Amino acid sequence: MNFSIPPLGAALDSALQHKIDNKTKPLGSLGVLEKVAFRVGRVQQSLSPRFTNPYLLVFAADHGAANAGLSAFPQDVTWQMVENCLAGGAGANVFARQSGVSIKVIDAGVAHDFGPRHDLVDAKITPTGTRNYLSEPAMTREQCVAAIEKGAAIVRGLAAEGCNVLAVGEMGIGNTASAALLTHVFTGVPLIDCIGRGTGLNDAGLARKRELLAQAVARAKLPADADAITVLSEFGGFEIAMMAGALLAGAEAHMTLLIDGFIATSSLLAAARIAPNIHEYCVFTHRSAEPGHLAQMRDLGGEALLDLGFRLGEGTGAVVAYPLVCAALAFLNEMASFDSAGVSKSID
Amino acid sequence: MNFSIPPLGAALDSALQHKIDNKTKPLGSLGVLEKVAFRVGRVQQSLSPRFTNPYLLVFAADHGAANAGLSAFPQDVTWQMVENCLAGGAGANVFARQSGVSIKVIDAGVAHDFGPRHDLVDAKITPTGTRNYLSEPAMTREQCVAAIEKGAAIVRGLAAEGCNVLAVGEMGIGNTASAALLTHVFTGVPLIDCIGRGTGLNDAGLARKRELLAQAVARAKLPADADAITVLSEFGGFEIAMMAGALLAGAEAHMTLLIDGFIATSSLLAAARIAPNIHEYCVFTHRSAEPGHLAQMRDLGGEALLDLGFRLGEGTGAVVAYPLVCAALAFLNEMASFDSAGVSKSID
Repeated sequence: MNFSIPPLGAALDSALQHKIDNKTKPLGSLGVLEKVAFRVGRVQQSLSPRFTNPYLLVFAADHGAANAGLSAFPQDVTWQMVENCLAGGAGANVFARQSGVSIKVIDAGVAHDFGPRHDLVDAKITPTGTRNYLSEPAMTREQCVAAIEKGAAIVRGLAAEGCNVLAVGEMGIGNTASAALLTHVFTGVPLIDCIGRGTGLNDAGLARKRELLAQAVARAKLPADADAITVLSEFGGFEIAMMAGALLAGAEAHMTLLIDGFIATSSLLAAARIAPNIHEYCVFTHRSAEPGHLAQMRDLGGEALLDLGFRLGEGTGAVVAYPLVCAALAFLNEMASFDSAGVSKSID
Repeated sequence: MNFSIPPLGAALDSALQHKIDNKTKPLGSLGVLEKVAFRVGRVQQSLSPRFTNPYLLVFAADHGAANAGLSAFPQDVTWQMVENCLAGGAGANVFARQSGVSIKVIDAGVAHDFGPRHDLVDAKITPTGTRNYLSEPAMTREQCVAAIEKGAAIVRGLAAEGCNVLAVGEMGIGNTASAALLTHVFTGVPLIDCIGRGTGLNDAGLARKRELLAQAVARAKLPADADAITVLSEFGGFEIAMMAGALLAGAEAHMTLLIDGFIATSSLLAAARIAPNIHEYCVFTHRSAEPGHLAQMRDLGGEALLDLGFRLGEGTGAVVAYPLVCAALAFLNEMASFDSAGVSKSID
């Protein structure tokens, strides 16, 4: 397992900023979209970046701890939602269609036999999902590495098809709990500040989730310098580890990575421990309603485009934001400059 | 001048909410988009609302007060930006193309002779723009009514073409000053809290703008109960008055109105004094960086979809947000329900 993700070069930075500043608009008046245009220009090392073959990968897996009372929904909802997504009826499908993004669903370890399906990528690490991290590590180190490598291989396939912009999403009952544990370990923020209501726990459910996750941390006794594979193996879901591999391979292929909420960002935290420069390839698309997302964003130093109050997962925040990211490229590529349009500049 | 804008009926409200709540997602997990879907469903009185023939109208005019030192840009930029927009190079053009929105540019009173142009709507109220409100009312009452009626007539034409969703924008050097005066009078918020840097005034420029606008308020001595036409006549730009007429006719035709920043919202404030129910037809798309926008939104009771730091005008915030508004309709129309997809519901 080896990823080569160098820091992005600064050779084009001043030309990019000059191009942005000379568009026919008050200086800085396209706000965050100017930063997005600059960032994607750097990822592509181009003054005229373009997106081709956009993809949303939805990774699904089950969690051994899910039935301990960590979610408002029963574990069967994972496979049911995979079926919903394959039928085109999930939120991710609707928004991906709307935004012109292709979608692929990946079974990273759902506890269900889907049978042979041409539209589902079979990447099961185990047939039943992870083990229960309340009593033992969720996966072996070998399983974790296999998940990361599988995610990377899928994205290398997309790169070969000409995809240069990647959104990731997930389905997995119990995965905000897993993401909370990962966020706590990777950021050092107190566990309680990393735990939220997930798909909609009530107060009693939230209290139970807090108690159980504190038990998991106490059981694992991770050393402060535990590496990303160790941490993912203890608490990860297969979908989270596979997503980390997808992001790593995406950055390696100079894709722009569209990161949305709490689960995707926990995956990015793991990826950033393996290849710290990966954050330069990311556009943060949506702020999560999960409280732990704040800790994640502080750690990564990002600022999200949208704050629509989404807490649905599946990469919905990323694909809903995709038209805005495209708008950033459009203004960079298509807007007239003061010179080309013959418009007078500011007096000041 | 007469607009019939009744309050929207509540007959479909519970069916709409039921449809939203039974989509395959945690309750409320599409945040603001759920509110947008509900709102547009009410405007169209339909459980399956659809947008047809979306339009952005860009109203342009010059302001008599513009050259007194109220803007960072010279007045000629108004006509230059109209030419830029007609050539397809302005931000509004780029984002409208990107979002699939048609655009029409309207000369409400730019101090420039464009000659005969098939792509520019000639709706000049005067050939030179408004008079200088620092020394006299910006327009007569008759001119104000003519501007409102012209804006309404243009939108009635769009309605006849099947347009049911309308964005409005503007071009006019000095028009944040005009909007600040209108916002102060319509909301009662202190003038100083309604004045910002517009296209980019420095500190000295901002101080000058504050001083001049305080003079304008002192000169006009408007009574507390001045009607919308009186207020618009004192301080309005022709583009702002015409936009108010466009919004009024849009609501009358049951269009969804996409409102973005400071100028468009000042226009809506005027329209709301004429027909208070108009706010039910609006989707607020972008928070403005102008401080007075806060006062406007408090007055109207709205919440904006986006906060990207735009301060460009031209309706750019509205057309950039349009794909998100479409996404709200798409989830309402296309997402599976728990029943239709066979997905288990929440345990709690």
